[in-house]
Amino acid sequence: MISVLRLNHRKRDKRITTHCALTARAFGAKEMTFTGENDPNIIESVERVVEKWGGNFKIKHAENWKKEIKNKKTKVHLTFYGERLKDKIKELKGKDIQVIIGGEKVPREIYDKADYNISIGSQPHSEVAALAIFLYEYSNYKIPEKFKNWKIKITPSEKSKKIKTRQ
Amino acid sequence: MISVLRLNHRKRDKRITTHCALTARAFGAKEMTFTGENDPNIIESVERVVEKWGGNFKIKHAENWKKEIKNKKTKVHLTFYGERLKDKIKELKGKDIQVIIGGEKVPREIYDKADYNISIGSQPHSEVAALAIFLYEYSNYKIPEKFKNWKIKITPSEKSKKIKTRQ
Repeated sequence: MISVLRLNHRKRDKRITTHCALTARAFGAKEMTFTGENDPNIIESVERVVEKWGGNFKIKHAENWKKEIKNKKTKVHLTFYGERLKDKIKELKGKDIQVIIGGEKVPREIYDKADYNISIGSQPHSEVAALAIFLYEYSNYKIPEKFKNWKIKITPSEKSKKIKTRQ
Repeated sequence: MISVLRLNHRKRDKRITTHCALTARAFGAKEMTFTGENDPNIIESVERVVEKWGGNFKIKHAENWKKEIKNKKTKVHLTFYGERLKDKIKELKGKDIQVIIGGEKVPREIYDKADYNISIGSQPHSEVAALAIFLYEYSNYKIPEKFKNWKIKITPSEKSKKIKTRQ
């Protein structure tokens, strides 16, 4: 089971943090906690997605990242300073993982507490992209297609919008 | 060569559009054009990254998406309504591609003009994640490591920050 810890959310990053949560859900993680500024709008908008599209993804805010570090899990901090994903992914597959993503100004302690510091490329890009690639590799390039208790569902289509809904 | 067309940028999505551009660059695309509202800050911040980190990624704004559709390229529109990536990626590899990503309210014409409408999962998540996964698949899971004319460069490391700089 994969949990995500998103550090140091700022209000201006509202959409990035929301995209992190939706990406976590869509690629098979079970929950995300974000620290930094609280923002009930993020929680509401992610919970609305879960309510409509199904599954049981959980999102919450926490004040203190130190209490959120899950020492029973393998802690994988995604950072462009870290070791190459391709060199470490085999060790990580199948493990019970907490993925940690910044936020700016990640405290030094995170690098030390993490079991792995992993880079998805060593160029600046996006925590959303990094999270997606990590989860995609972890899942052997499979993207979940089934979410329980959906009210809306899409069937892949060449040109049209095939939407099923139910109550 | 891969070009990205990001449709219908809104000011509130400043960071998402910036992340799209940085993700495009980091995963090997050569340029991104965004339509919708113009925002010189986005262009400046991406150009600052290129200046420091190297390569020759280009970003620009355009008023009218219709003039930006590259009919000589294979046009791949990423949408959660589209066909599964895994069913189409073999056909796409090696082609000269324009990747098109929303923005909200993608016009119907995009679905029709696109040679492929491709989904990276059929759940709501993020254009940043979709773009990253598409480029990662297209590149056979390789992430570019060399960018010419860098002034700053990172060497992957287990726990520390290994940064090289030059003028």
